[in-house]
Amino acid sequence: MSYRPALPHCLTLQVRYRDQIGMLGQVTSAIGHAGGDIRGIDFLSASRGEVTRDLTVDLRDPEHGEQVVEALRALRGVRVLHVADRTMLLHSGGKIQISPRVPLSNQHDLLMVYTPGVARVSQAIHARRERVFDLTIKSNAVAIVTDGSAVLGLGNVGPHAALPVMEGKSLLFREFGGVDAFPLCVVAHGPDDLVSICKAIAPTFGGINLEDIAAPTCFEVQDRLRKELQIPVFHDDQDGTAAVVLAALLNALRVVRKDVRALKAVISGAGAAGTACARMLLSAGAKNIIVCDTAGAIYRGRKKHMTPIKQWLAERTNPDDFRGSLQRALADADFFLGVSAPDILPARALKKMARKPIVFALANPVPEVPPEQAIRYATVFATGRSDYPNQINNVLIFPGLFRGLLDCRARQVNDRIARAAARALARVLKSSELRPDYIVPSVFDRRVAPAVAEAVARAAIASGLARTHLPRT
Amino acid sequence: MSYRPALPHCLTLQVRYRDQIGMLGQVTSAIGHAGGDIRGIDFLSASRGEVTRDLTVDLRDPEHGEQVVEALRALRGVRVLHVADRTMLLHSGGKIQISPRVPLSNQHDLLMVYTPGVARVSQAIHARRERVFDLTIKSNAVAIVTDGSAVLGLGNVGPHAALPVMEGKSLLFREFGGVDAFPLCVVAHGPDDLVSICKAIAPTFGGINLEDIAAPTCFEVQDRLRKELQIPVFHDDQDGTAAVVLAALLNALRVVRKDVRALKAVISGAGAAGTACARMLLSAGAKNIIVCDTAGAIYRGRKKHMTPIKQWLAERTNPDDFRGSLQRALADADFFLGVSAPDILPARALKKMARKPIVFALANPVPEVPPEQAIRYATVFATGRSDYPNQINNVLIFPGLFRGLLDCRARQVNDRIARAAARALARVLKSSELRPDYIVPSVFDRRVAPAVAEAVARAAIASGLARTHLPRT
Repeated sequence: MSYRPALPHCLTLQVRYRDQIGMLGQVTSAIGHAGGDIRGIDFLSASRGEVTRDLTVDLRDPEHGEQVVEALRALRGVRVLHVADRTMLLHSGGKIQISPRVPLSNQHDLLMVYTPGVARVSQAIHARRERVFDLTIKSNAVAIVTDGSAVLGLGNVGPHAALPVMEGKSLLFREFGGVDAFPLCVVAHGPDDLVSICKAIAPTFGGINLEDIAAPTCFEVQDRLRKELQIPVFHDDQDGTAAVVLAALLNALRVVRKDVRALKAVISGAGAAGTACARMLLSAGAKNIIVCDTAGAIYRGRKKHMTPIKQWLAERTNPDDFRGSLQRALADADFFLGVSAPDILPARALKKMARKPIVFALANPVPEVPPEQAIRYATVFATGRSDYPNQINNVLIFPGLFRGLLDCRARQVNDRIARAAARALARVLKSSELRPDYIVPSVFDRRVAPAVAEAVARAAIASGLARTHLPRT
Repeated sequence: MSYRPALPHCLTLQVRYRDQIGMLGQVTSAIGHAGGDIRGIDFLSASRGEVTRDLTVDLRDPEHGEQVVEALRALRGVRVLHVADRTMLLHSGGKIQISPRVPLSNQHDLLMVYTPGVARVSQAIHARRERVFDLTIKSNAVAIVTDGSAVLGLGNVGPHAALPVMEGKSLLFREFGGVDAFPLCVVAHGPDDLVSICKAIAPTFGGINLEDIAAPTCFEVQDRLRKELQIPVFHDDQDGTAAVVLAALLNALRVVRKDVRALKAVISGAGAAGTACARMLLSAGAKNIIVCDTAGAIYRGRKKHMTPIKQWLAERTNPDDFRGSLQRALADADFFLGVSAPDILPARALKKMARKPIVFALANPVPEVPPEQAIRYATVFATGRSDYPNQINNVLIFPGLFRGLLDCRARQVNDRIARAAARALARVLKSSELRPDYIVPSVFDRRVAPAVAEAVARAAIASGLARTHLPRT
């Protein structure tokens, strides 16, 4: 069977058919024979000898949807009136809204929440700037900023097409972290624009989450903003990925009983995520990391396809100066981390790894190595997908991390805080719970965000980066 | 009695007193004697012969609050444990939040609202840009943008101190217009910065509401953005004020049976609001308008204190080339509009106006002329305040106006649309309802926003500025 990513494709088919015994059976059988999975049947109307119903059907993909519709159209006495794409419907009109936290039902309320009452609130902040954290949404607000230059696996689709993704992110922030995160999809031409925009909007927010910004722009933007702003600036594609990878790796190492300091790690991908993961592994104590790009291993003195960030990697990784392909680099590796591109490695390449290999193939939705086969060679195998065990998903980190940063009104986020978040995430699973196919909690595990938030606030306080030592209650 | 603005000042006093008969009576009497108005009494605890209660008390101002606390402290056996300012409490932590419009309770939801399902939504927008209106919050989102340079009557308090005001505005947008308006208080140094920021963030929003930006920056910013953006850009301090003033004037003219074309109008204030009101009155047919600033009437050829916008006014108003003070300009005027500064005019100055004079003194919270006295001379008298009849409040316009612009996905807002909004607002009151002290509906009149929205959408469609002729349902 060919490998298919499990993109959910759910249609609601509005069907009208002759009102006679057995017709609904014919309709549902036709859907079933064509491979559709019926999730629900609604009655809409019956008149003039005809019945109209909505059938909600799970399908493999849009092509499969067309096949099912064709199968229905082939039935005598059946018409398909309307086909609605459930995913599109769900996103229709946006996935988030702004709602009130205070009542506004009479003149007295209005006088308090708006003029003239609000003037006193403004004056209090004008007199002492820090009071903006007490008296406004700033203490709970995060800007999700993107230029749409590297959206999911889609590439540079621009700010408009990025908006549904950022709204989804906002939803995750709210659901898992109780954070008010507003999507700002911006027109920006390079790092200067992004830095200016973020600096301009900073007064409103308690933190900035950079998202889906292409390398190397993202490196420069984050570096500059961290120096110039007094609120934490996090790039989820780098920092979030690195933290969740470290958490998963720490637990995988507990499963296979290996030590991070003795690890040979091979990373495929030297973009935003790969670089951040390499940095995080180094800071967690790993000594032997080889980062590979399309030109093979990155080593000191390499001339081809180098960038400042690859230069940085060359100086700090690959201590044995290995030169060669990704496949050759894998010999005797304990850990393979893919944050690169779909299907770049045959599963048999994993055979040369050390005993009890750990493989994280995170390209999404199609991993670096075919999961069904990789699972035969790797002791611990993880992907970014929810339809395999061990889903390595940034949502395990960013909601709790920002919750913690906001709770202590952090001025900045640093590597120490990100490591604390990773360790807290890893510790959510007790040793007795750990298994090769259960190294990270479910994204719906309600223990995760509070545990991460608490560790982050502690680390921020210990780093001297917190404005308050008293968490919000 | 000296004139006092009705700033609400409400305290919750936590009081502990000896548990014996008559003590609560002593406490409430002391508050009453000191002039406090008790709104509520809560029981908190009783132990070791003492009772603790919360008393919520309305007071005139902070000084009055101190007097009441002193009066309580003077009582034997009574301690004031804590004084909480209700207005500050109400604003604490912000007045708005971001909440979900779709469920997110299991993996299936997650796959649909976030990756991988959202990729198809992004691709649909990437393929056809206009679909961003169908598939994201853009179709209902407005940015409330300010640099904090002219906040309420407080002046240039900066973006942080502006945030509670913009949050209040967001609340009004939601409550009255069903609009998702997000406050963006930005660091900006002049018009170039504001224009860049608004252009950068435009992809996320269906409209921009500029707010509390000082003149002349606000003029340039709005002019440039209206040329460069494909979403409506409204400056509430100008356009909103002008529209609500026009609506109130039209109804006042119905009451005194005068015609706008025969009107002599005098405007005090040549800032953002005054200029916009002059322009709006001109476009509504007024021929004889004199605009005054601190140097008196603005006329053709004036040399002192001129700016490009005053030059514009000089060329289009004051047809008789009147030169002199505001007070002298008022002779035979039918309409005085104050959008300037507190207490600049004695009430007797209104005696020289034409018969049945209309006076709108909108400086807030202290009007241009003392209301108690002005009301004796003016047939129709209005302020910006809720504690006098005829409150001229922008909230009568902007929520419905943006509702209408979003409903038809307008590309721009123009004077014709603003006039349509004003006329629709005026028409909400039937002729039989109109009275000298009831020329505008209450801000809580639920007929207002839908009426304004419908008129705005019609006008936008008629102006060829709408993307869709089908309002959202």
